[in-house]
Amino acid sequence: MPHSDDTSFPVSETSRIRRYHERGSHERQAVYAVLDASPICHVGYVIEDQPYVTPTLHWRLGDRIFWHGSSASRFLKQTREHKVCLTVTLIDGFVLARSAFNHSVNYRSAMVFGVAHQLTDPAEKEASLKAMTEDFYPGRWDKLRPITAQEIKATAVLYMDIAEASVKVRSGPPGDQAEADFPVWAGLVPLQTILSDPRVDGDPDHPLPVLSARLGAKT
Amino acid sequence: MPHSDDTSFPVSETSRIRRYHERGSHERQAVYAVLDASPICHVGYVIEDQPYVTPTLHWRLGDRIFWHGSSASRFLKQTREHKVCLTVTLIDGFVLARSAFNHSVNYRSAMVFGVAHQLTDPAEKEASLKAMTEDFYPGRWDKLRPITAQEIKATAVLYMDIAEASVKVRSGPPGDQAEADFPVWAGLVPLQTILSDPRVDGDPDHPLPVLSARLGAKT
Repeated sequence: MPHSDDTSFPVSETSRIRRYHERGSHERQAVYAVLDASPICHVGYVIEDQPYVTPTLHWRLGDRIFWHGSSASRFLKQTREHKVCLTVTLIDGFVLARSAFNHSVNYRSAMVFGVAHQLTDPAEKEASLKAMTEDFYPGRWDKLRPITAQEIKATAVLYMDIAEASVKVRSGPPGDQAEADFPVWAGLVPLQTILSDPRVDGDPDHPLPVLSARLGAKT
Repeated sequence: MPHSDDTSFPVSETSRIRRYHERGSHERQAVYAVLDASPICHVGYVIEDQPYVTPTLHWRLGDRIFWHGSSASRFLKQTREHKVCLTVTLIDGFVLARSAFNHSVNYRSAMVFGVAHQLTDPAEKEASLKAMTEDFYPGRWDKLRPITAQEIKATAVLYMDIAEASVKVRSGPPGDQAEADFPVWAGLVPLQTILSDPRVDGDPDHPLPVLSARLGAKT
């Protein structure tokens, strides 16, 4: 029986966490935190029994997730309901244990289920593209050469309302302290996504853009 | 009509590149290069019309890709053919143009199609897990506490032979030089995945592990 409340997303057989459930949650804030921590997601959809997984940029307003959806155009031409699974994954480090079996990865991953729709109203599309630009580069939209009607038309924006969602997180050292005497190095190798110094194209005298923390850590 | 030769993977309506085809290729070496450049993939599969996208670790031997497949156990219980799409994506930077429309991302992405199978023979599973460990941490397998029959049994290894594949790459500066006079900063913000210094768990006197270049750049 689906269960939902203010703090958690509903759970069905689709989203129930089957493995390492101690690492998992359906809590809204935990799901949002992972979705918002990376600008990149992988969207899964089905065309005639064939799964497709497409990387794209996403942004979120409440329980609605938006993404660039051009490569899904064939998908949206199907007459049936457009079920999607949108997954965001951050790798925080490699976990080296004393046995191969206990090797692992520290990660945060959110898996979100829903039905995809396409924005068609030009004003809604423009508002959404502005929200994306501001989400990535705060304050940038109003400084840009204004968007044209043709550009809005040429940009596909898809969205889904989160129907179900789960999040999984692994952190900490290897889980093999019981055999800590085994004579091999064990520990963590942290992994970070780092933004390097911007490389200007054109006039270097314009003020540098503001980069959202979503994009990566600064050097 | 599917087309294949020594240098390229076959192409059908499934894998044909529809958008920005000038950024795309079906060449084997280009596909391999992206698959091998990251340890993480997203595997898409279908259960009763519902797509799922699961992050996992992968490794490759020729045209065969292996991955940890525990979360796909329900998927493999289906009686029909187990079609999958496995996607690897690396984000190399953010591309800030003078218009919102020309903003982009520099990336490398490979999308691989095939049919998933599960390794069942214990000796084959052990060989595959050794190949993975050596791929990630060269020389480490023989230093570890030896794997047990129970651990091999408890580990699910899936694989696919690449039936079709495509790769897409975007690199370089923003594509809006025609409006380079517009008064706003434009350029690239490179993104790198960086391995930090290892944090030992236990005895610090054991030699540090060797980390494959696949895992990330070293500090």
